[in-house]
Amino acid sequence: MIKTDILIIGAGPTGLFTVFEAGLLKLKCHLIDALPQPGGQCAEIYPKKPIYDIPAYPEVLAGDLIDNLMEQIKAFEPGFTLGERAETIEKQDDGSFVVTTNKGTKHHAPVVAIAGGLGSFEPRKPPIQGIENYEDRGVEYMIKDPEIYREKKVVIAGGGDSALDWSIYLANVAGEVNLIHRRNEFRGALDSVEKVEELSKLGRINLITPAEVIGIKGKGKVRGVEIKRQSEEPYILECDHFIPLFGLAPKLGPIANWGLEIEKNAIKVNNALDYQTNIPGIYAIGDVNTYPGKLKLILCGFHEATLMCQSAYQRIHPDKKYVMKYTTVSGVSGFDGSRKEAEKAVVKKIG
Amino acid sequence: MIKTDILIIGAGPTGLFTVFEAGLLKLKCHLIDALPQPGGQCAEIYPKKPIYDIPAYPEVLAGDLIDNLMEQIKAFEPGFTLGERAETIEKQDDGSFVVTTNKGTKHHAPVVAIAGGLGSFEPRKPPIQGIENYEDRGVEYMIKDPEIYREKKVVIAGGGDSALDWSIYLANVAGEVNLIHRRNEFRGALDSVEKVEELSKLGRINLITPAEVIGIKGKGKVRGVEIKRQSEEPYILECDHFIPLFGLAPKLGPIANWGLEIEKNAIKVNNALDYQTNIPGIYAIGDVNTYPGKLKLILCGFHEATLMCQSAYQRIHPDKKYVMKYTTVSGVSGFDGSRKEAEKAVVKKIG
Repeated sequence: MIKTDILIIGAGPTGLFTVFEAGLLKLKCHLIDALPQPGGQCAEIYPKKPIYDIPAYPEVLAGDLIDNLMEQIKAFEPGFTLGERAETIEKQDDGSFVVTTNKGTKHHAPVVAIAGGLGSFEPRKPPIQGIENYEDRGVEYMIKDPEIYREKKVVIAGGGDSALDWSIYLANVAGEVNLIHRRNEFRGALDSVEKVEELSKLGRINLITPAEVIGIKGKGKVRGVEIKRQSEEPYILECDHFIPLFGLAPKLGPIANWGLEIEKNAIKVNNALDYQTNIPGIYAIGDVNTYPGKLKLILCGFHEATLMCQSAYQRIHPDKKYVMKYTTVSGVSGFDGSRKEAEKAVVKKIG
Repeated sequence: MIKTDILIIGAGPTGLFTVFEAGLLKLKCHLIDALPQPGGQCAEIYPKKPIYDIPAYPEVLAGDLIDNLMEQIKAFEPGFTLGERAETIEKQDDGSFVVTTNKGTKHHAPVVAIAGGLGSFEPRKPPIQGIENYEDRGVEYMIKDPEIYREKKVVIAGGGDSALDWSIYLANVAGEVNLIHRRNEFRGALDSVEKVEELSKLGRINLITPAEVIGIKGKGKVRGVEIKRQSEEPYILECDHFIPLFGLAPKLGPIANWGLEIEKNAIKVNNALDYQTNIPGIYAIGDVNTYPGKLKLILCGFHEATLMCQSAYQRIHPDKKYVMKYTTVSGVSGFDGSRKEAEKAVVKKIG
C-alpha cells in the first residue's frame, strides 16, 4: 500500500504543479497516470508544439513546460505510479481513501486530487468487426516494444505522425512494413513524410493508399488483413501484426463511476472556493473540473491547484493555522531538508 | 482623452498579463501606473530577488519575470500612462468610465480593471512634527535628480539599500554627506555596506549612529536638523537637505474613494466568477482584491485576469458569442496584423 498526503490522479501540468504547492505546505504527494511518463497530453500528444499562453512564457514547447515543472517539484520528491489507470476508490472509516489501479496497485491518502485533464487517453479503434478478439494476439494499438516485430510482417494503418514515424522505425526492424492510409495525403512533420516517401521508393515500406483494412484473418492470432482499395475487390494481405495508429481519444473512464457529480463529461466542483467535489476530501482541478466561468487552460489549473492545497492542508491538519509565506522571503524547502533560500540581505555593523 | 477597451490600473504582473488575455480576444488595453516603469513591485522593489512559485519557473528573478511578460504582450501594443496615479473615476451615461490621473490625463474605456497590487507605493515618512512644511523645500523622500545636491550639505536617514546606495553616490556630488541611522547595523548588499564603511574612513561620509533626526530647523527652507543620540542632549546639524529614505509603503490611495466595497484594505469581488466589483464594469484582479479563499500570489492574478477578460468581452460585445481557441491550435494574433502561428502539421501527398 502506497501512503501519501495528497494522492493526485493525473500527472499533467496541473497535477505536477500541485506537488509544488503541496510541498510548500510540507504535504507529500503521489501521482497516478495511465500514460507511461509524466506530463499528460503535453508530453504524450504534442511535446513539440509551442504554447503561447503560459504566463511569462512568450513561447514554450509543451515538452519543455513539463521538463520545467518536473525540475520545479524535484525537491519535494513526489512518488509516481505510471502506466496504470486509477480504477476504484473506497472511502475508509476515518474519511481517508484507498485508490486501486487497473493493475491492482493500492494507494492510501486523506485527500484525493483528480487532475485528470480530459480523461485518460485511449487509442481510437478502427470499426472492424471482431477486432477485440485479436487484441494482444497480433493487433496492437500502441507500440510498446518494437523488438516483437523483428523479422515479422507488419501492417500499420494511419495517416499521422505516429503511423509515419513507426513505419520509418520498423523499416529497420520488421521483415516487411506495409503502411495503409485511406487518403493519399499524410499529415506529419515534413521530414517524416519525406523519409517515408524515400523508404517507399527503396521498397522498404509498401505504401497502400487510398485503402482501408476492413477485416482480420487468422485463427486465434492475426495471419492477415483484408484490404479494400476504392472500387476494387477486397484482397487479403498476409501479415503477423496489424497496428492501427489512429490517435488517442480522451475518456473520463472509471472516475465517472466514483459517485462524483458529473456535468458535460467534467466533474462539478463548488464554485472556485477550493475546487472540492460533492465528496468531501476529493478535489477536482484543471481541465477535468467544471464550475461557472470555467476555462480549460493550463494557467487556470495552476491557480486551482494552489487554492486546493490550502484546503487540503486544513483537512489534513484541522488544528493548525497555516500562515502563507512568500517564496521571495522564505525560499523553498524540500522534504530532503534541502532548502533553496531567497537571497538574504546582508547585515553588517558599522562603527 | 486616451481611449481603450480595457483600462488597467496598475502595471504589475497581473496588469501586464491582462493585456495578453485581452489581446487574444482582440481587446485593446491601456495601463496607468504611479511608478515610472511597468512591473510594479517586481520591477521597483525587488527586481533582483528570485521567485520560486511562478509555475514552470523553478527560479526566476522578479525583473526577468516582468521582462518576459513585456515580451509576451508586445504584439498587442498596450498603451501606458506611467508616473501618474489614477485619481478619480466618473461613470458616463453609457456605462463607460473616465479615469483621470493626478496630472490630469484622462482615459476613457467601457471596462476598468484594477490590478493595483497592494496599492501605490508611497514613501514612509518619519514622525517629525511639521515635516510636511519642508517637503520640496529641502526635505525629499526620493531622489529624482541628484544634481540638485551638488556642493550642498546633505543629511540622509535610513539603514537600508536606498540610504546606503545614495550616500555612496552623493559622496561624489554633495559638499557634505551625513548618514544617520538609529542602529549600528545596516541591512544592504555586502559591497554597499563595505563601500560606506570605506568612505566613512576616508571622511567622505559622516556616519552618525545610533541616532535619530527629531526636528527640522529653518524658515520656509531646511537650514538644519536636530539630532538625538541616545542619552546625549539633542544638537543641531546644519544642512541644506534632509532626505529620509525609509522605504516605500503600499497605500490603496484614491481608489479607496471610488465607491467600491472595501474589506481589509482590499476590494471585494464576487466570488471568483469574473472578479467584478460591486460596480458593474469595474473589475479587481490580483493582490488588490479579496474573496473567500483568496491568496495573494502572482499566479492567482494570472488566472483572475484571464477569467476577467472573458467577462469584459461579454460586456463590450454583448451580442457576440466568443468561442475560446487554444494558442497551440490558433497561435497568437497581434493588433498590427502580425501573427505568431502555431506550427502547422505538414500535409504532403504521397504516391
